[in-house]
Amino acid sequence: MAQTPPRVIVIGAGFAGLSAVKRLGRSGADLDIVVLDRHNYNTFQPLLYQVATAGLDAGDVGHHIRGIIRPYRQAELLVETVARVHPDQRLVELDTGATLPYDALVITAGARTNYFGVSGAQEHGLPLYTLPDAIRVRNHVLACFEAAEADPSLVDQGALTFVVVGGGPTGVEMAGAMSELFRNVMRRDFRRIDPENARIVLVEMTDTLLGAFRPRSQQHAHEQLAARNVELRLGARVTNIERTRVTLESGEVIPTRTVIWAAGVQGNDLTDDTFERIRGGRIVVNPDLSVPGHPEVFVAGDLAAATRRDGTLLPQVARPAIAEGRHAARQVLRRLGGQPTVPFRYHDPGNMATIGRRAAVADLPLHITLTGGIAWLAWLGLHLIELMGGMHRRTEVLVRWAWDYLRWEWGPLLILTPAPDPDLATSEQEQEPGAP
Amino acid sequence: MAQTPPRVIVIGAGFAGLSAVKRLGRSGADLDIVVLDRHNYNTFQPLLYQVATAGLDAGDVGHHIRGIIRPYRQAELLVETVARVHPDQRLVELDTGATLPYDALVITAGARTNYFGVSGAQEHGLPLYTLPDAIRVRNHVLACFEAAEADPSLVDQGALTFVVVGGGPTGVEMAGAMSELFRNVMRRDFRRIDPENARIVLVEMTDTLLGAFRPRSQQHAHEQLAARNVELRLGARVTNIERTRVTLESGEVIPTRTVIWAAGVQGNDLTDDTFERIRGGRIVVNPDLSVPGHPEVFVAGDLAAATRRDGTLLPQVARPAIAEGRHAARQVLRRLGGQPTVPFRYHDPGNMATIGRRAAVADLPLHITLTGGIAWLAWLGLHLIELMGGMHRRTEVLVRWAWDYLRWEWGPLLILTPAPDPDLATSEQEQEPGAP
Repeated sequence: MAQTPPRVIVIGAGFAGLSAVKRLGRSGADLDIVVLDRHNYNTFQPLLYQVATAGLDAGDVGHHIRGIIRPYRQAELLVETVARVHPDQRLVELDTGATLPYDALVITAGARTNYFGVSGAQEHGLPLYTLPDAIRVRNHVLACFEAAEADPSLVDQGALTFVVVGGGPTGVEMAGAMSELFRNVMRRDFRRIDPENARIVLVEMTDTLLGAFRPRSQQHAHEQLAARNVELRLGARVTNIERTRVTLESGEVIPTRTVIWAAGVQGNDLTDDTFERIRGGRIVVNPDLSVPGHPEVFVAGDLAAATRRDGTLLPQVARPAIAEGRHAARQVLRRLGGQPTVPFRYHDPGNMATIGRRAAVADLPLHITLTGGIAWLAWLGLHLIELMGGMHRRTEVLVRWAWDYLRWEWGPLLILTPAPDPDLATSEQEQEPGAP
Repeated sequence: MAQTPPRVIVIGAGFAGLSAVKRLGRSGADLDIVVLDRHNYNTFQPLLYQVATAGLDAGDVGHHIRGIIRPYRQAELLVETVARVHPDQRLVELDTGATLPYDALVITAGARTNYFGVSGAQEHGLPLYTLPDAIRVRNHVLACFEAAEADPSLVDQGALTFVVVGGGPTGVEMAGAMSELFRNVMRRDFRRIDPENARIVLVEMTDTLLGAFRPRSQQHAHEQLAARNVELRLGARVTNIERTRVTLESGEVIPTRTVIWAAGVQGNDLTDDTFERIRGGRIVVNPDLSVPGHPEVFVAGDLAAATRRDGTLLPQVARPAIAEGRHAARQVLRRLGGQPTVPFRYHDPGNMATIGRRAAVADLPLHITLTGGIAWLAWLGLHLIELMGGMHRRTEVLVRWAWDYLRWEWGPLLILTPAPDPDLATSEQEQEPGAP
């Protein structure tokens, strides 16, 4: 009788999950790898803000998971929603009620938007964490301009005021890209309103943008956003969001129809009462990324409270997620091969954010800080080389986009809301952005 | 006091509407051109079936209307829904209640899906006339495969049976493209099901496919679809559609979750009790395309009952629509210039349909009939030259697609349903596909 190969389940097919699957698949080990994701696509999140600002189309940043795992015959994808994990029985329970046993588990279930309990934020804020989020932001922003063109009196009611909450990379990138979209691309297209007069207000709780960056990068981001007419509200806190306005703690009321919520994320609650969590819902992990008490369960990506050697938490961005996923896969292989696991060591290549065309900041190792056009090229190069891997189509998309972007050739300015499919039980709608 | 230029309203920005706007804009005449459309994009309908079968992304066949009319400073777009036309008062009424007066009107409001009263067709049939329609078909078809992979017992319940109703160009193109998608692209991507075993059933009421084509083309379409394992039901009528099955007049019951409804269209009912209509809801027009009794109102495109010189109706496809729109615009200019109008003369360049890769049929003038690869190239060339005009991006898209298509490099296989925007009153959902 042939022996059944050990089953490794990977929950989530984001950067961490796919990185784990590739490492497992490439090992050639006799495994039964099951990938579980709610969607049949992987999202290239670093460029989501470009989808939201009509620089890229959805198909450019969404990638078909089956195509990515095609080379690994041991791996299969099931498009299913995970209800919870039962580590004591080594079972993953789906929301259909079915259970899947595993020998090793890699949880990369990611995060979802954190509204921090701000009144009205969940109802009226537009998050920017998933691909459907980004398409919704694009549709909404473009629809605001169409509404104002049809009835210019709406401008005084805030139809052309766009508030971004959160001064981290997502908020900065979104504010910068909106400014360029309005002032360089859309300005020629309306007769009754002037998109150059649209207001962009960036609200940040702390006293600086890009808190995780070096002061020189923060300063550059300030200057570049100011040069793009973005109004900065630093040290400002949003206390209430309504359909037609935002209220700040200072008492300032901003009439607006658009609040882009880029204030932060929290780990998905897939295993809520099962594993220990820290602030932000990240799961506590051992140095080897396994879960305390369950050496066959690993966590990687936004959901893992993985740290640097000095004990500080790694940021919830693509590059650490990829490294963590790969590490978790290696430890699974070591365990299955009877070897001891080793601790995760992250070699930090730095921090980067794009403010606009030829304007970016890059905090690199050895205290090298780049700003402006050279940082933009570094950003492009790093994404090309490190994140794209051997994926021909992705590389082509990024090169084409960069070329168009530099020439102000913009992409898909369509307001397109496909009707949901009422008939098929399995067709899904976004209920909880970011859940696997 | 400066004289107000005459206002020309164009309802609808499809092939006919944009063709009229371009002709009016290029004339250099001092006009106030107002374009009304429910959407901010124009749809390249001949390639909708490629969006539905994941060969192209939505942004490839949707084009931003403001970008297209940008060269014409006299023209403006209002993204609004027209409620009705009041020809006696020369007013267009919007669904907001506002009215717009006009000196001349070009109605190109298009058509919508005609369900011919078949029981269950409107509830469960998936039409393929608008861009949201095409995205919904794609999401649905791909979701069927995902559901069957997760639970292979669904295959016996029809999860992988795809019924296409209507053997005209849309039905033939859709059946052929699905077959290639399943058998050439998706076959490598599943572990538990075999996409090559998916059934495609094409149901046509008459005894032949492509009724408007020459017998040799019809024969080629039969052969090519049969070679692609498409099951043909000719002379067959659908009597009932339920969520999980289709019933034919013969008594045959086909278990299926997918009925693509390509059986025909009817004119939009924008002006229902105002103008005289023929079967299919097309508005009766004079030889110059004006409406009897209203010489300042013209109708063009799918909504117009325009005829050839022999009195037969022109097909509701792109090329006649473009010619009619241009003609209507010329007559508007002649009338405003005090000249008599002239009759519309259509120079028919022929009929074309694509069955699959390197397989097409083309009925050309002078009794030339092409089939196979040469017809496919003719199809490609004609679309490139005649429909794309000077639009750089469209041309690039088509060339890129044709190149990928020939290499079986497929595009966006994503199941992506953006959540509708609950907040903005102007954000729209499809209520009546095809309405302007």
